[in-house]
Amino acid sequence: MPRKIAGIRAVTSALNQKQLEIAAVYLARNHPDIEKLANQRRIPVEHRPDHELDCLVPEIRHQGAVAIAGPYPYADISQLLEEAPSRVVVLDGITDPYNFGAIVRSSVAFGVKHIVIQQRRACPVTPVVVRASTGATEYACIARVSNISRTLAHLSKSGYETLGLAAEGNGDLSLLETTNRPKALVIGSEGTGLRRLVAAHCEQLVRIPLEGPMESLNASVAAGVALYVATRSM
Amino acid sequence: MPRKIAGIRAVTSALNQKQLEIAAVYLARNHPDIEKLANQRRIPVEHRPDHELDCLVPEIRHQGAVAIAGPYPYADISQLLEEAPSRVVVLDGITDPYNFGAIVRSSVAFGVKHIVIQQRRACPVTPVVVRASTGATEYACIARVSNISRTLAHLSKSGYETLGLAAEGNGDLSLLETTNRPKALVIGSEGTGLRRLVAAHCEQLVRIPLEGPMESLNASVAAGVALYVATRSM
Repeated sequence: MPRKIAGIRAVTSALNQKQLEIAAVYLARNHPDIEKLANQRRIPVEHRPDHELDCLVPEIRHQGAVAIAGPYPYADISQLLEEAPSRVVVLDGITDPYNFGAIVRSSVAFGVKHIVIQQRRACPVTPVVVRASTGATEYACIARVSNISRTLAHLSKSGYETLGLAAEGNGDLSLLETTNRPKALVIGSEGTGLRRLVAAHCEQLVRIPLEGPMESLNASVAAGVALYVATRSM
Repeated sequence: MPRKIAGIRAVTSALNQKQLEIAAVYLARNHPDIEKLANQRRIPVEHRPDHELDCLVPEIRHQGAVAIAGPYPYADISQLLEEAPSRVVVLDGITDPYNFGAIVRSSVAFGVKHIVIQQRRACPVTPVVVRASTGATEYACIARVSNISRTLAHLSKSGYETLGLAAEGNGDLSLLETTNRPKALVIGSEGTGLRRLVAAHCEQLVRIPLEGPMESLNASVAAGVALYVATRSM
């Protein structure tokens, strides 16, 4: 079963297969039958312009109907690096699917499509993540790695400047926009931030300047601010 | 019943009053009995440093225990303006308590404590909002007004530059940091953005530069990015 199911008949048939997990249905036109089936299964339906569906399924005649189903097609890190992205987001242990989804959404919206997550102790791309990202997962290239620290060492060797976002960082956020080297922005978990070993593998730790008494931002808000700064100079 | 209940006995007694709605309990030390009572009522307990509790209840001996209960003490708009804040956040119809809470948290963290919301068709400060804000509501000065457009006219007359955040805006985000006039940052609802009349009452509409195919950010992420830019020059 492919990840993206396009066309009226294919989407209808997928919705009728009760055992098939479907994350979302995107419609560019009115398809009352599809909408009814999706509602019955409590699958969210989003109305999007035609050109967005064209982006989702570039070479398929979608007739204004696309469903997202089946397992997420993760990239591996070497595939990701082959595309030589100028910015990569590395997530160290984001466990909340809503935060994860919002970060993927912000990332893609700011033009950063390459994201690295860890296989264990982190939220995978579930249907909730797809929805929370408003479908941005389908435009992203997400690699799952077994070890974030080792991946950061790999990224460094490949010429990436590795910058960790951390409340205890002493670098200014503007470091994210300074040089012309490609950058990996490393974002820690909601509760505990970057793990010690991961932080040690970052060239610099940068922080968002905040005023007391609040000492931190929501993880997806912090990621959004950092992504905004990191992509201004792209 | 006051909003903030401080001290071991007062917090214990409040937790024992089942009909009293309590949004959160903050502890600076270990109080197993309080924690047990709160857990039984599924009231979130957060551990915070002593100095944060001092900020919450400045003139009260809190013994490391504070509970937030009862109705939120809204300011009115004239009280808010008397404090002559250099930045005000105006929310036009945020209905999701998690988004509202995250925006209040970001706002206070970036040093903007003055927030205006609408009485109708907007989320009030509920216990869920208090929690989502991680307690930032208690440091903020939140005014509820009956009409956002009229409030924007009032703010303009009082010398504020009114800047609306909108996908259809043609102003650059850097307008938020340019002049020395005090600023009101107007943020629209999750689904539909600023209402037409509210947008018409903004001096300028600014937008966050995004790349296709994603056309928007999560409301609290967008607010966070705008707040970061708006407070850099403060």
